[in-house]
Amino acid sequence: MDIFIEPIGKLINQFSKLPGVGKKTAQRYAYKVISMTDAEAAEFAESIINCKRKVRYCKTCGNFTEEEECAICRTRSRSAICVVKEPKDVIAMEKLHEFKGVYHVLHGVISPMDGIGPNDIRIKELLARIDGSVEEVIMATNPDVEGEATAMYIAKLLKPLGVNVTRLAHGIPVGGELEYTDEVTLSRALSERKSI
Amino acid sequence: MDIFIEPIGKLINQFSKLPGVGKKTAQRYAYKVISMTDAEAAEFAESIINCKRKVRYCKTCGNFTEEEECAICRTRSRSAICVVKEPKDVIAMEKLHEFKGVYHVLHGVISPMDGIGPNDIRIKELLARIDGSVEEVIMATNPDVEGEATAMYIAKLLKPLGVNVTRLAHGIPVGGELEYTDEVTLSRALSERKSI
Repeated sequence: MDIFIEPIGKLINQFSKLPGVGKKTAQRYAYKVISMTDAEAAEFAESIINCKRKVRYCKTCGNFTEEEECAICRTRSRSAICVVKEPKDVIAMEKLHEFKGVYHVLHGVISPMDGIGPNDIRIKELLARIDGSVEEVIMATNPDVEGEATAMYIAKLLKPLGVNVTRLAHGIPVGGELEYTDEVTLSRALSERKSI
Repeated sequence: MDIFIEPIGKLINQFSKLPGVGKKTAQRYAYKVISMTDAEAAEFAESIINCKRKVRYCKTCGNFTEEEECAICRTRSRSAICVVKEPKDVIAMEKLHEFKGVYHVLHGVISPMDGIGPNDIRIKELLARIDGSVEEVIMATNPDVEGEATAMYIAKLLKPLGVNVTRLAHGIPVGGELEYTDEVTLSRALSERKSI
């Protein structure tokens, strides 16, 4: 990349590390940075450092937080725990403004193909949270093979503890069309049909 | 955006300022930053600051440089000047490894609709560069309305100075198909046909 002078080439390399960003996009980003004012660029750089330095994992749920324990764990009822794969799944659930319980972030799912076993994700931390006050654990891992297997595995561990374990419903997406729904989803939607 | 804790929300806002980046993409970028090591994040931030601080405009051609005059102006023959709209167009030309002359970056094109007149772009700087040693000026502005108009305007100014002014050829793109070539381009390709 000796077409670019060194500081621009370096910045393009840095932007290329972001997910889904190729050389061309990284170049556009770098040019945008050059067109910023000094103050804007400083603020940008500062926010990267800050984000990296201030953000850590909640000791209880494993979600991102600035404190030792996150705001959700500190303020909400712990009678329902929603188990998700990653912090971004917490954001997806929170956008609903419907779930009023707390979360548990696994930071991964069981995936023998990738060498990730039950001890590599935060399952024992979840088990340690189960006491008399927990009424329901909602398994909200992704509806893919690893997500389903992880949900089943955890459900088996939780049931002897006398806690109600549920799973997000499968079915046809709202606004979707039968014609374009894949067969596995349609089959699930049929077998899990409800009376109306 | 109070779903995100403050340092993450701020970083997402910063990433959202990059061209073509929405909230969702900015969120992915921010999560990537969080997953970086401290050293990686520091390097990223540092490269933004560095790029902004070190990069300036070449006093001759207006391209990005770290010195007072860019490496191209310092080392190449000045008998041919390629006139482009923006620094990124220099990169596009340089990737060819074919043009051995120097550049002149206009930093814009004449666009009365946007209130940009001939005095708002680097035209007088270009005229000041024309001396006996310049044999050819290649107009390589974009083939859109503003780019064409700017090329014509500059050509008119340059011709009385006895310099040979040329324009990049229009025609069907290599590898393209006649069927999908727009009519204006096809018409230009026809009227500018060459004997083989």
